[in-house]
Amino acid sequence: MTKTICAAATAPGGAIGIIRVSGSDAITIANSIFSKDIINAQANSVIFGTICSAPDVVIDEVLLTLFRAPHSYTGEDSVEISCHGSAYIMHSILQLLIQHGCTMAEPGEYTQRAFLNGKMDLSQAEAVADLIASQNASQHRVAMSQMRGNISNKLVELREKMLKLTSLLELELDFSDHEELEFADRSELLQVTLQIKDEISRLSSSFAEGNAIKNGIPVAIVGAPNVGKSTLLNALLQDDKAIVSDIAGTTRDTIEDTINIAGILYRFIDTAGIRKTNDTIEKLGIERSEKAVEKAQIIIMMRDPNNDFPQLEIREDQKVIKVTNKSEDFQAINGTGLDWLKDKIIECTNRDTQEDTVLITNSRHHIALETAYQDILRSYDALQAGLSGDLVSEDLRQCLHHLAEITGGEISNTEVLHNIFKHFCIGK
Amino acid sequence: MTKTICAAATAPGGAIGIIRVSGSDAITIANSIFSKDIINAQANSVIFGTICSAPDVVIDEVLLTLFRAPHSYTGEDSVEISCHGSAYIMHSILQLLIQHGCTMAEPGEYTQRAFLNGKMDLSQAEAVADLIASQNASQHRVAMSQMRGNISNKLVELREKMLKLTSLLELELDFSDHEELEFADRSELLQVTLQIKDEISRLSSSFAEGNAIKNGIPVAIVGAPNVGKSTLLNALLQDDKAIVSDIAGTTRDTIEDTINIAGILYRFIDTAGIRKTNDTIEKLGIERSEKAVEKAQIIIMMRDPNNDFPQLEIREDQKVIKVTNKSEDFQAINGTGLDWLKDKIIECTNRDTQEDTVLITNSRHHIALETAYQDILRSYDALQAGLSGDLVSEDLRQCLHHLAEITGGEISNTEVLHNIFKHFCIGK
Repeated sequence: MTKTICAAATAPGGAIGIIRVSGSDAITIANSIFSKDIINAQANSVIFGTICSAPDVVIDEVLLTLFRAPHSYTGEDSVEISCHGSAYIMHSILQLLIQHGCTMAEPGEYTQRAFLNGKMDLSQAEAVADLIASQNASQHRVAMSQMRGNISNKLVELREKMLKLTSLLELELDFSDHEELEFADRSELLQVTLQIKDEISRLSSSFAEGNAIKNGIPVAIVGAPNVGKSTLLNALLQDDKAIVSDIAGTTRDTIEDTINIAGILYRFIDTAGIRKTNDTIEKLGIERSEKAVEKAQIIIMMRDPNNDFPQLEIREDQKVIKVTNKSEDFQAINGTGLDWLKDKIIECTNRDTQEDTVLITNSRHHIALETAYQDILRSYDALQAGLSGDLVSEDLRQCLHHLAEITGGEISNTEVLHNIFKHFCIGK
Repeated sequence: MTKTICAAATAPGGAIGIIRVSGSDAITIANSIFSKDIINAQANSVIFGTICSAPDVVIDEVLLTLFRAPHSYTGEDSVEISCHGSAYIMHSILQLLIQHGCTMAEPGEYTQRAFLNGKMDLSQAEAVADLIASQNASQHRVAMSQMRGNISNKLVELREKMLKLTSLLELELDFSDHEELEFADRSELLQVTLQIKDEISRLSSSFAEGNAIKNGIPVAIVGAPNVGKSTLLNALLQDDKAIVSDIAGTTRDTIEDTINIAGILYRFIDTAGIRKTNDTIEKLGIERSEKAVEKAQIIIMMRDPNNDFPQLEIREDQKVIKVTNKSEDFQAINGTGLDWLKDKIIECTNRDTQEDTVLITNSRHHIALETAYQDILRSYDALQAGLSGDLVSEDLRQCLHHLAEITGGEISNTEVLHNIFKHFCIGK
């Protein structure tokens, strides 16, 4: 028996509001506030009726959808109430549900239950939050493929390889007195271990790209003071605002300087003007600019007729776009050259990755992969050094354990789960 | 055959988003973007599947609910798509629907179709918008009873009485050469006409209360400059904000000075301090204050130890609450006495109206009723003056016509409908 939870699953302000109820008593509780008997209603059916707070006080005319365990999002008996999207009505229905025995859901509690009931693994559950937050095609694609299990499948593959490795090691231990056998096995073992190590390494380093997709590819705008860096940023933002506004209400307001260009998110970093100075505070600002440049994948170097390009150390993996502002071809203030700049930015974006490549976007996964990489590296070194199979196996077990953390197979700690799901929105 | 329309029915930012599709091709179009065949699916059933923009590009895993005409909100074949509440996903699904033949819905177009298909009359349709906007128990109650047809029923009653009157008038005309009959009939006619006139008058004057419920009961805060009027308003607003905030996201921000007290909406009018002055601009401010006082149902008169109560003309139907600020019992700045004031405000609120009394809240209805009242008044006068039944009948027909405008029975003008529905939100 689980506690039955309820929450609004839609944002206030729409034509329709959805309230979700899930748990052992979901159908009984919904039945007690609904005008029709739904106790024996068919699963996956929609029923029209009213919700009353007192015999003559109609709260709303609603559509009620009934799901029976295990065929629901959470895997539990569930009811979705579709009402008019008035904050007052939704509040009243929630109050009524609570009076009849429901508890308000915690953030992410529906998805947490889906995970605990085996409807999805942890990496898929985490992708649900990313999917809801997705604002462009790239973010959507990585979140969707994670939700549909691409990371999970990759980890299953790795797990199978490692289990094979473990069984080969056991075989080796069984025949450890036949030296000629051991030699043959070790070379095969080394080969499989190398494959696993490379795959974990590739997954782990995909975080740079995955993170850039999720949080925006870092682009630094640098140049001497007053060449027009902030004007350019504003021009880009303004332009982006116009595009974004026809997709009603995205959340980009909170991340001030991210901009969608051709479905890719860029995080523009406006930097302090770089010049030689003795002023202590200005020096600090310039130091920050230099750090921003260090982190950037793309650097827009800006000059104007009165100032030259700044002197900067650029790494090989960084792309540079040079812009002469206040010129005939480029005038940030009135948007001249903006389209050219955007095309350049897109050109500079690393698009080598195949669309179906598995990318890591979650720092929890990244940490687990980094740890697993150290484990597999130790196994590999131990194998190469000809150490005993027992020692190699222990490292492999650690590696398996750390990889399993990603899909949550070995997580029973409720605090860990709480930390993962607390960032979800309520109602999901 | 109707154009098939689509729109998001939920606000962006929630866990779930709902997209509504309605029209002759709703099921065919939805079928062409959905992973399962729904052409022969059962009405009122929910089907889980995916929506893809290309063979391998999953936009989302969704629940699709199917409604078949006439058993849907609009009365047409309809589909509701419940997807993850990401602006990007909702936008992509809408784009896909449009590519497959849907048109974006106009504001209120679903409800307009429901009206045109006879699922509800015009006064009920208008109540849907009020219901969605309702923020407190009173607003909700009047909108809900209007949506459930209380105005419609009242008008049906009136219509029946008037038709009876018309048939009596015809009877009178048929026997117009029998003078003794005419006299008897006229007294009955007069009585029925009086009843209708009184009922229309009552309905029309209920607009004052209905409008106060919908837009807030006007309360003026008056007093000499600096006695603490704005401080009081802020204290009340602050207090209200705290209450409102646990009902997630109401729209009260746009109507700056309305406050919910015990489920009733008050519209507080902060006035310029009233004192004798020769300053022209200040005089204008004071004139405005006097107008605000004129409109107010409740007047909070404020003084402090240094200033007396202002001298004002108060009508008999206005209630006055006297407050001495900066005293032991009342300190607006720290909220002392605020609860007492609120109790007083509630006391001063006219609650004589029975909960089931039909109230007019819509100015379109009010205008129609006012006109209908003039019509019935003319009929009554004509009857009393002993004028010919033909003339009386003509006024009655006018009256019937104007009342029918309320429920939309005689509205075929698309511009009129457009004006009514354009204030709806999109997706409703």
